[in-house]
Amino acid sequence: MSITTPKGFVASGLASGIKASGAFDLALLATDDSLAVPTAATFTTNLAAAAPVQVSRDHLLATGGRAAAVVVSSGNANAATGAEGKRNAARMCELVADGLAVSPEEVLVCSTGLISFQLPMEPIESGIPDLVAARSGSAQSAEDAATGILTTDSGRKEALVRGSGFSVAGMAKGAGMIAPNMATMLAFLTTDAAIEPGPLADLLRIAVRDSFNSLTIDGCTSTNDTVTLMASGRSGPADPNVVVDAVTEVCAELAGQMAADAEGASKIAHVRVTGAETDGQAHQAARKVAESMLVKCSLNGADPYWGRIASELGSAGMAFDVDKLTIAYGGVVVCRGGLTVDHDRAAVTAHLEGSMVDIHCELNLADGNGMVMTVDLGYGYIDENRTTS
Amino acid sequence: MSITTPKGFVASGLASGIKASGAFDLALLATDDSLAVPTAATFTTNLAAAAPVQVSRDHLLATGGRAAAVVVSSGNANAATGAEGKRNAARMCELVADGLAVSPEEVLVCSTGLISFQLPMEPIESGIPDLVAARSGSAQSAEDAATGILTTDSGRKEALVRGSGFSVAGMAKGAGMIAPNMATMLAFLTTDAAIEPGPLADLLRIAVRDSFNSLTIDGCTSTNDTVTLMASGRSGPADPNVVVDAVTEVCAELAGQMAADAEGASKIAHVRVTGAETDGQAHQAARKVAESMLVKCSLNGADPYWGRIASELGSAGMAFDVDKLTIAYGGVVVCRGGLTVDHDRAAVTAHLEGSMVDIHCELNLADGNGMVMTVDLGYGYIDENRTTS
Repeated sequence: MSITTPKGFVASGLASGIKASGAFDLALLATDDSLAVPTAATFTTNLAAAAPVQVSRDHLLATGGRAAAVVVSSGNANAATGAEGKRNAARMCELVADGLAVSPEEVLVCSTGLISFQLPMEPIESGIPDLVAARSGSAQSAEDAATGILTTDSGRKEALVRGSGFSVAGMAKGAGMIAPNMATMLAFLTTDAAIEPGPLADLLRIAVRDSFNSLTIDGCTSTNDTVTLMASGRSGPADPNVVVDAVTEVCAELAGQMAADAEGASKIAHVRVTGAETDGQAHQAARKVAESMLVKCSLNGADPYWGRIASELGSAGMAFDVDKLTIAYGGVVVCRGGLTVDHDRAAVTAHLEGSMVDIHCELNLADGNGMVMTVDLGYGYIDENRTTS
Repeated sequence: MSITTPKGFVASGLASGIKASGAFDLALLATDDSLAVPTAATFTTNLAAAAPVQVSRDHLLATGGRAAAVVVSSGNANAATGAEGKRNAARMCELVADGLAVSPEEVLVCSTGLISFQLPMEPIESGIPDLVAARSGSAQSAEDAATGILTTDSGRKEALVRGSGFSVAGMAKGAGMIAPNMATMLAFLTTDAAIEPGPLADLLRIAVRDSFNSLTIDGCTSTNDTVTLMASGRSGPADPNVVVDAVTEVCAELAGQMAADAEGASKIAHVRVTGAETDGQAHQAARKVAESMLVKCSLNGADPYWGRIASELGSAGMAFDVDKLTIAYGGVVVCRGGLTVDHDRAAVTAHLEGSMVDIHCELNLADGNGMVMTVDLGYGYIDENRTTS
């Protein structure tokens, strides 16, 4: 499985010298004929959005949602870099455009790494022509690309879903605890389904909401978060309602790989809230529980202290009645009507000591449902994040 | 200095047996003549508010803002305890009222400790009569009361401010990281200034906003947070505009003691935001930075990585232009116009390695100012919170 499995794409990755370690730091994803195809993207909502985010947004607007390539650099975020940073991000597009003989607006750009440092342009000026030249549809090239976007990730993150007559693939790098110094979650998807820019943007928005936006590591919204989806159309028209499921599945698989790769985390927890007034309130409540430092510490210690969960729900800013609350760990009800109920303590402890925890909060108010995935808080998170050097 | 320094108050504290350790677990604060005096309180906004919070709210409403006593138990929060919990909280008031020959509505009640367990009423039934009998205006009794409200705090938290012709005193127990298992911040203030219930409530609200509500340990809002202020009137009428400053000073001093006592924390940081569109937006931005797990980790490592601060400001949900941003650590500007500027790195590192850190973010948009106090995130927080047993 690789980002070039859907028909019509080529990729490449290499080490240009941005990273002192000599690790791969540039990646390219492009159409095999260098023609621009329908492309959708979602970007960080952070008002301190990095230069490449600003440039890519402008390019997508200029082309009406089409692109021939996405170029990615890792090791430096090109964020909080002002006008020079924007010129450098634009220059990366220009270098790719020259190599592919397309217009710079048909190229998107992403960067990931430390904030507040200018991009080292020398390795990029010499590296991008090599990167363009190296592009191919081979599995090795796709692997190189998936490697080139990583920062402190422990390994590549890739996913593939085959639909009926089309396929969707993706590669990603981690967020939050995985590499919070690097401050970015990036994902790049390809499909050979034929879908116009408008519907493509709609379905990507839905897929991201139900996957990446339901994962929280530390509640931080980076300056560089970006997800792109290119649709080559080589497998012919497809129903967007079918394609959305495949795209969501790829995104969810990548989000799961990010959570599993979180530094210092020993387990993943799915926080499910049902019976809220609305789906939005359920999601908000699940996020409040999932981002709670106290709940994340309890997960680390496998402590079934549901009082903290009740307290977080009570301060989540949504409709809530503690006297109607039911809480279950791994299907074992520990609280009903807001009160402790007799339960199999050994079963709950065994569940909490595992690597996948399920926390279900039934609010018994209406029909709103939501889920947010999180990880526990352990020493490793502090070790990873106390210094950037 | 003690809670009984303002004229007209008595106090007591003792070990009733709620805590297995044998430590003090009951405290009483009362007027020396058992007459109800103007009393204000602010309570947690958590919708899962504990039984004592519900009972105290009702009592203050019933009396129009007057009380003769406040009784406090520590070791058990009496939260998520349903109708039985509410009966037990009311019973605590009744026991005090019997001893003082006042109506139960003239007694407020607070509890702090673990959530989801019923109060052990046996020690309380026998302990409260002893507590009432032990009350006095002595320094020792005040010390006993200040001890009886503690949970995992490392020591008593007390403050006193003498105004012209009146005084304000306070005792408190910590919040958040200090004792997040115990999940509560409690503070009890006394003054001998004569102020009616209405103005008293107004000035307490202002004082709490500018002190306790500007302290964040882990962003969690407990089920039991309560601040009370009783005004005996013994020193005669005072201008509420003068008294508010003294009350704010006492609250700020207690908040500082809470931050300094935070388990696992090695330093306190004041995050100041100036130049925001409004004071509210400035406070919101300061809180976003102060609650950021990434920023708190950087503080732990004394790492001057201002990119994280810029990123938090950009996602704080307020007006922001990174190109206008100035950031200074301990007065040393590290970022201007959203870009790194040359600065004395040794001075910044020395400042960050100290125990009091000042982070100043000037947004250069308008005149809104705000400040939030926080602490760093270290191993100790995880050690303290991973299990409740």
